[in-house]
Amino acid sequence: MSFTSSHLNEPITIAILLHEGMTASDAVGPYEALRSIPGATVKFVAETPGPKRVDSGFLSLIADYALEDVPHPDVFVVCPGSPVAVPSERVLSWIRTAHETSRWTTSVCGGSVLLGAAGLLRGVQATTHWLAMDQLAQFGAIPCPDRHYVRDGKIITAAGNSAGIDMAFFLVDQIAGREIAEATQLLMQYDPQPPFHAGSPTQASPRVIELAQEFMQNWIISASTSDGRML
Amino acid sequence: MSFTSSHLNEPITIAILLHEGMTASDAVGPYEALRSIPGATVKFVAETPGPKRVDSGFLSLIADYALEDVPHPDVFVVCPGSPVAVPSERVLSWIRTAHETSRWTTSVCGGSVLLGAAGLLRGVQATTHWLAMDQLAQFGAIPCPDRHYVRDGKIITAAGNSAGIDMAFFLVDQIAGREIAEATQLLMQYDPQPPFHAGSPTQASPRVIELAQEFMQNWIISASTSDGRML
Repeated sequence: MSFTSSHLNEPITIAILLHEGMTASDAVGPYEALRSIPGATVKFVAETPGPKRVDSGFLSLIADYALEDVPHPDVFVVCPGSPVAVPSERVLSWIRTAHETSRWTTSVCGGSVLLGAAGLLRGVQATTHWLAMDQLAQFGAIPCPDRHYVRDGKIITAAGNSAGIDMAFFLVDQIAGREIAEATQLLMQYDPQPPFHAGSPTQASPRVIELAQEFMQNWIISASTSDGRML
Repeated sequence: MSFTSSHLNEPITIAILLHEGMTASDAVGPYEALRSIPGATVKFVAETPGPKRVDSGFLSLIADYALEDVPHPDVFVVCPGSPVAVPSERVLSWIRTAHETSRWTTSVCGGSVLLGAAGLLRGVQATTHWLAMDQLAQFGAIPCPDRHYVRDGKIITAAGNSAGIDMAFFLVDQIAGREIAEATQLLMQYDPQPPFHAGSPTQASPRVIELAQEFMQNWIISASTSDGRML
C-alpha cells in the first residue's frame, strides 16, 4: 500500500508478534499507523500461524506467518502475551535473531519484558505498562516510568497498550517522513479527545488505581486457572 | 470479564459489525474499551461468520457470529466496509431490526453512512470520517463536522477511525459508570500523546490534506479494480 508512486520508499518488512491470550489492540493500534508506510509489508507472526484468541475470548486475530518465516524483519513490534505466559525460548530466540539485523526493534505494553528476557535491554532506557514497571530493572534496563515511549538507539519501547499508537506515529515519521506521518494521522482522524483523563497513574485517582490493580489481579487469577480467557 | 463481583452490571450483549475489506482498528479500537464493561459479552458479527481480511490485506479478524445469530444486541457498533462496497440489504435490515430494541446504536468512521442508508439518521445529528461528511446529508442527517462524536438520543456516531476509541469511553461511562470507565482508561494507559497534531482537517496543513485525499483516491481505485486490498 502506498500514498502514490512518488512516495515509494524502499520495500520494508514489518513483523508484529501475536500470541494466544494477548490484548488485541496492543497489535492493531500500532499496525494501523505502520501499514501506511510506503513500501511496507506488515507480517503478523506467531509461534504457530493461525487464529489467536485474544484475552477477552471475544475475538481472534490471524497470524499469517510462523516466526521462522520472517527471521529478519526491518522493523518488528513485540506485543506481550497473557500476563501469566512464560515466554518460550523459541520466541526469545526469534527476538534475538531479528534484533541482530533490524532497523528498529520495538515493543508495546508488557512486550518490553520479552525484550528484557531476550537480553536486549541491559543498560537500555525503556518503558512498559505501568503495572509491569517493576519487572524492567531485573533485566538490567533503565526504567523510564514517566515516558509514554522511549527511544534508545534502535530500540523503542512504548508504555501500556494505547501508547503503542503514539510510538507508531513516531516510527512512521522516522521511516517515511513527517508529511506521510501526518497524512496517516489525518486519515485515521487521530485527534484524541478522551472524555476524561485517567490514562496514567499520575492522572488517575487512588480509587481508580486500586480498581485497575484489582482488575489486573482478577485477570491473572483467571488466566492462571482457566484457558487464559478473562470471563 | 468483570472488575470484581461488586461491579457486576446486568448481562448485556454488544455486537460489532465486521466486513471483508474493512479497516481493522475501526472495530478493535472501540472493542478494547467496551469489553471492560462488567457483564458485557462482545460478539463480532458479519454477513457470514469467519475470517475477514482487512483493507491492507495484512491481517484477518474473525467474526464468530452471523448477523442472524445476534438480532437484538443491547449495544451495537457499525463499522464501515471497503469504501466502494455497496451495503447489502441484509446488513441494512439487520441494522434496522437491531435498532428497534437496542439501548445504544453506534457507528465509527463511515459506519454512519450505513446507519443513514438504513434510514436511521433522518433529522439526527451525526458525524463521520471527514472525507465522508458530504454523504450524511443525503440521508437526511444533520452533519456535525466539528464534532469528534455526537450523541443524539440513543444514536452515537463517531468521526473517523480513532474517534471510535473516545466514543467507546463515553459509552463505558454511560453503561458502567465513571469509575469503571476511568479504570479502563488507566489499564489501557490511554493518555494520548501524538508526536504531531494533524488528526483533523482543521489542524492539518493544506499539503497534508491533499496527501490524505490522494491516498483515499488511490484506495478507492485500488479497491474498485482488485479484490479490495490496498497494495
